[in-house]
Amino acid sequence: MRLEDVDTPAVIIDLATVERNIARVQAHLAGLGLKVRPHIKTHRLVRMAHAQVDAGAVGICCQKLGEAEVMADAGITNILIPYNIIGAAKLERLAALAQKVSLSVSADSAAVVEGLSAACAHQVRPLPVLVECDTGAGRCGVQTPAAAADLALMIDAAPGLQFDGLMTYPPIGRAAEVGRWLADAKAGIERADLACPRISTGGTPNLGEIGQIGTATEHRPGTYIYNDRSLLAAGACEEADCALTVRATIVSRPTPDRAILDAGSKALTSDLLGLDGYGLIVSHPDARIVALSEEHGHVDLGQSGWQPEIGEQVVIIPNHACVVSNLFDRIYLRHPDGTIEPAPVDARGRST
Amino acid sequence: MRLEDVDTPAVIIDLATVERNIARVQAHLAGLGLKVRPHIKTHRLVRMAHAQVDAGAVGICCQKLGEAEVMADAGITNILIPYNIIGAAKLERLAALAQKVSLSVSADSAAVVEGLSAACAHQVRPLPVLVECDTGAGRCGVQTPAAAADLALMIDAAPGLQFDGLMTYPPIGRAAEVGRWLADAKAGIERADLACPRISTGGTPNLGEIGQIGTATEHRPGTYIYNDRSLLAAGACEEADCALTVRATIVSRPTPDRAILDAGSKALTSDLLGLDGYGLIVSHPDARIVALSEEHGHVDLGQSGWQPEIGEQVVIIPNHACVVSNLFDRIYLRHPDGTIEPAPVDARGRST
Repeated sequence: MRLEDVDTPAVIIDLATVERNIARVQAHLAGLGLKVRPHIKTHRLVRMAHAQVDAGAVGICCQKLGEAEVMADAGITNILIPYNIIGAAKLERLAALAQKVSLSVSADSAAVVEGLSAACAHQVRPLPVLVECDTGAGRCGVQTPAAAADLALMIDAAPGLQFDGLMTYPPIGRAAEVGRWLADAKAGIERADLACPRISTGGTPNLGEIGQIGTATEHRPGTYIYNDRSLLAAGACEEADCALTVRATIVSRPTPDRAILDAGSKALTSDLLGLDGYGLIVSHPDARIVALSEEHGHVDLGQSGWQPEIGEQVVIIPNHACVVSNLFDRIYLRHPDGTIEPAPVDARGRST
Repeated sequence: MRLEDVDTPAVIIDLATVERNIARVQAHLAGLGLKVRPHIKTHRLVRMAHAQVDAGAVGICCQKLGEAEVMADAGITNILIPYNIIGAAKLERLAALAQKVSLSVSADSAAVVEGLSAACAHQVRPLPVLVECDTGAGRCGVQTPAAAADLALMIDAAPGLQFDGLMTYPPIGRAAEVGRWLADAKAGIERADLACPRISTGGTPNLGEIGQIGTATEHRPGTYIYNDRSLLAAGACEEADCALTVRATIVSRPTPDRAILDAGSKALTSDLLGLDGYGLIVSHPDARIVALSEEHGHVDLGQSGWQPEIGEQVVIIPNHACVVSNLFDRIYLRHPDGTIEPAPVDARGRST
């Protein structure tokens, strides 16, 4: 189909830009001696996961078991779930998945390790488990290098598990500090005669500084495949690197200063990520998307000379690409020759 | 199944509460002499639409054609789409749907009316069209009663269309002012010898004041069927009236002051609606959900004596029920006897 035949609101993925983004980050990280393990929650597409692996990634990273199951069914063979897997239902699925692909997970507490061990005690292969470290981002993770070493020893001693290393989502702008944290933890683990073969870091905004961490062995970038307005604002990409855009239509012009789009929070999400407004209208950056209801986007034209007509279409770079790809059952791939291919979003909506 | 068998994060809908909410609002609006036309974007479920019609609603309201198509296929026969329908693809679907059910739409500009007329000019029955009025909410809609009358006359003269009345989403707390606006518009239309048989208002937070508008003939409440934290904060419902809750699990306890839930923006959405935090933990209202990443909710325990264990489950009333119901492919209905029935969310994700 052609772009003109795509009804709005719709997500368009530019494949040439995707290919460039994958190649650039793969080369950058390989140049730093890091293995690349892309996070698929940005795209949630089997074809993109395969493209990342084909470009040299060692495997992928999924935040949910349900996403990992979709990717495993599609032939992806090496998956990290950097999440505390808890509860009988998920642990049973985890054990089944571990028999099918090369799977690793993370843990940040004895309670999580005990659950993993009980689920995997009778597996043929032990489950590789990384210790999640809170190196400053303030989410999950053990709080000190000493606590990381303690949990590593507990994993090493737990039936069915194998200590595989450290995992963190480093805070931006503090690479050297993160590096010292991880080096301390690694040294503590090695002092206990335990090897720490893998140190996994994540993030796209920090790709420029990730080499300064030093001790990492693999990196999990996610958003780099599409990029978005938050990365544009952070100076981490150019507009031409934004592969995911939302196409929308002006459906109302109630006043000279106001235009209404058919893209609201159900298309752009309410994620602000500290930005002003809910997305960038590429053709008219001075027209601000100031408010969203679920099915309407409110555009303030007060600082713009633009006077769009009803029915006019616009291209929007959303604040946060990952959450947008979860909102659409189907996205549209734009091939280099301009043709458009609709595609279901394979792993969207996996809530468990 | 039983509640203990539901894996988290999950949306639970309490059916006894739903039944009470439907009956209470139906009786309230009927008592005011208003027809009830529930907005289905809160639940997106065929069974709830049928329950609302069975309780006395004249029909339903859908924001998207795709939602209306799902509901029409399921036997709902009277549907309003209060949205400017624009573009060849949607207009073709609209014309097809109008042959199948009693359908009405709204318009707020000549451009929209021209499109509707072109699509419906050769229909056997004319399409009823309401003029959308901006009575102060500042979204879509004509700006003055005189402009409403002008557009009504244009609809009346357009082949394939029939002027059916006025539609507005009134701003909260300004019922008398909205009433005057609508009365002026109606008088202007009637002075031109055109009948104005229907005046449709919307909203749940304003149910207590809607009688003061006076000129309305039907009301489109949406959120009342489930209620949510925004309505609790507005004093429009009690906690016991909240039928939709998100069940989540504590997956990490990194520090004494911090707990991490397995419900992030993919379960609770980033919608703040002016509130502090991203949801109410029913058992511990002083534990604040202060931040969300996509798959994690960050709970600040600093003002709470609660020290939850990893694996503990909590019940959360989300800020905004409508957007939550769009995020899950499947929700869980809790019957009065406590049994749990999983159900697909029939009309979720309809983006066009």
